Amino acid sequence: MTSSQPDAGTGGGGHGHGDGERSGCPGREKTGDRGRDRAGAPRWIAGVDIGGTNLRVGLVPLEGGPPGVIRRERTRAGQGPAHVAAKVADMLRSAVGEVGRGGVAGIGVGCPGPVDRGAGMVLETPNLGWRHVPLRDLVADATGLPVTLENDANCAAYGEWWQGAGRGAERLIGLTLGTGIGGGIVLGGEIYHGASDAAGEVGHMSVDFDGRLCACGSRGCVEAYASGPGIAARAVEGLADAADSSLAGIARTDGVRVTARMVCEAAAGGDGYARRVLAETGRILAVAVANLVNLFNPDVIVVAGGVTAAGDHLFRPLRDEVRRRAFPSALGACRVVPAELPGTAGVIGAAGVFKGAVYGGV
Amino acid sequence: MTSSQPDAGTGGGGHGHGDGERSGCPGREKTGDRGRDRAGAPRWIAGVDIGGTNLRVGLVPLEGGPPGVIRRERTRAGQGPAHVAAKVADMLRSAVGEVGRGGVAGIGVGCPGPVDRGAGMVLETPNLGWRHVPLRDLVADATGLPVTLENDANCAAYGEWWQGAGRGAERLIGLTLGTGIGGGIVLGGEIYHGASDAAGEVGHMSVDFDGRLCACGSRGCVEAYASGPGIAARAVEGLADAADSSLAGIARTDGVRVTARMVCEAAAGGDGYARRVLAETGRILAVAVANLVNLFNPDVIVVAGGVTAAGDHLFRPLRDEVRRRAFPSALGACRVVPAELPGTAGVIGAAGVFKGAVYGGV
Repeated sequence: MTSSQPDAGTGGGGHGHGDGERSGCPGREKTGDRGRDRAGAPRWIAGVDIGGTNLRVGLVPLEGGPPGVIRRERTRAGQGPAHVAAKVADMLRSAVGEVGRGGVAGIGVGCPGPVDRGAGMVLETPNLGWRHVPLRDLVADATGLPVTLENDANCAAYGEWWQGAGRGAERLIGLTLGTGIGGGIVLGGEIYHGASDAAGEVGHMSVDFDGRLCACGSRGCVEAYASGPGIAARAVEGLADAADSSLAGIARTDGVRVTARMVCEAAAGGDGYARRVLAETGRILAVAVANLVNLFNPDVIVVAGGVTAAGDHLFRPLRDEVRRRAFPSALGACRVVPAELPGTAGVIGAAGVFKGAVYGGV
Repeated sequence: MTSSQPDAGTGGGGHGHGDGERSGCPGREKTGDRGRDRAGAPRWIAGVDIGGTNLRVGLVPLEGGPPGVIRRERTRAGQGPAHVAAKVADMLRSAVGEVGRGGVAGIGVGCPGPVDRGAGMVLETPNLGWRHVPLRDLVADATGLPVTLENDANCAAYGEWWQGAGRGAERLIGLTLGTGIGGGIVLGGEIYHGASDAAGEVGHMSVDFDGRLCACGSRGCVEAYASGPGIAARAVEGLADAADSSLAGIARTDGVRVTARMVCEAAAGGDGYARRVLAETGRILAVAVANLVNLFNPDVIVVAGGVTAAGDHLFRPLRDEVRRRAFPSALGACRVVPAELPGTAGVIGAAGVFKGAVYGGV
């Protein structure tokens, strides 16, 4: 992704040119010049973060900096990818209207699941229920703009590298604790993709070879312990010995399921059992983090996602256990820090990916 | 390590020049021109592989290819690093004498333990009992040649990348199963060192967070299961339930300790218990390999070391279990293969490191 011009990995280069009406973006003038405004230069890159629940579209300044505007709606992936692409176009039009003048150079899209960047295809997304979707071209068709497609966890890591907690680090690993555990690796300012765009599956590092069954079919994946559902499941399993925990009452309530957020809230409220669950989560997550430190010897590991709201209840045992396990010479070179861009890293990173592909770097 | 001239990471640039007598290497003429022969160009790079037991010195053709000659002696690290450096000079002199004319451009040294490449220091080697040894300059002083210093597991991986089982792979990971489990990562034709020269500690990836205590202080490191001593220890522990195994008789013999080699030999001889120990070794090793596949999405993983003599008794369960655990899209892009350069990968890789540093690549 270092070409200085749109390449095979950038959709819309063919059909997007000179078709400003079709995009309907007020900021995109009919110059036939891919989103440049009358002053001659685009001011924005659109970043799109397609999540299982929320769809975010933001306008990121071409020169970097926080999004000038960001829109959020429900993804409603069940209505199909073409519907989502049309919604992206609507949200983009609205966003451009809010910031006023300024052309949009193009769109970076981040989407869950393995993607084929060259073909612009989403290969499989259990969270969205999509398979083999030509998402890059759908968004390019809906907006008339050139588009890049990238895995969402890679975008989140790249966003934190570009503008967040790992700004400019030579070697960064990002973890996002959510429904699953996403991972992204940034080396030398570029996302590390591996041989088949499948690198960075940090969540599916087994840290317990005969341990908990993971949705991926393996056992002991850190995702099975420290993702939101993993934390909730472990919390519920231990409740038999924690009758005094506030979570026990919640678990007995019909129609209510204990969530990781409830565990975090209970811990914040002083619930000892919830704190022990989070401490154990931090300890297990630390095994994965220490493995990453020993393998990659990175400059920074950025931990993102809703669970980081647990703060010290998670991060203190995490850091203590990493110290017990990682090589001091590697750990001494590595910061393990919470993300700085909650909710926007994916949008910023997706825009950065577009910028890197088209302008040769951020 | 891409400079085209000897740099701060290459010792001997100062004191080695114009001092051919001091080196005593017959192939190195007194041209003051760093090992060039009378024809004007060096033909060889010396590769030095310093192991806990054996010290190997080989002459590797500058243009690549197998070593023209290789010498092996006992390391006898206890006699001290200066003694080892003098022995390297003797072995090199003898090797150059055997191949006849042809200058030596310089020496690549591979040594266990974390090294500071910039300073040319061996920081710590439990296997050799050395700490903070300026090995690069010791060898440069003893030979009068410029020297590079690199971790031995990195050299082994680089050797397999340059001339062995992973020739030219864009992304290679090497594992060497020996007294410990060494690891090396080669990305884009260069050893991946990480932020503080500490990357690639594959052996200290925990795959069982409450598992076997490792010499490093952590628990469940794959080295604690699948290194030579790890395999032997596990074999002995299970003998109570395997009285019919040939290993049981060995274990009862005074003064004899069961080794991984004995386990491999027993398995080759049909011993069912020994085969189960190796199958379990393969299964646990597979967890680490699958983790590497999911993280790095490499083109090839090369497994080296004496234990690979177990052949299918190790590799079949290893491959079966990797298939159960790694993502198909990543595994489909990755070969998991035995090394092709047993005994010489370290020498070849060390020479390749010198070539890369001085000539800008192999």
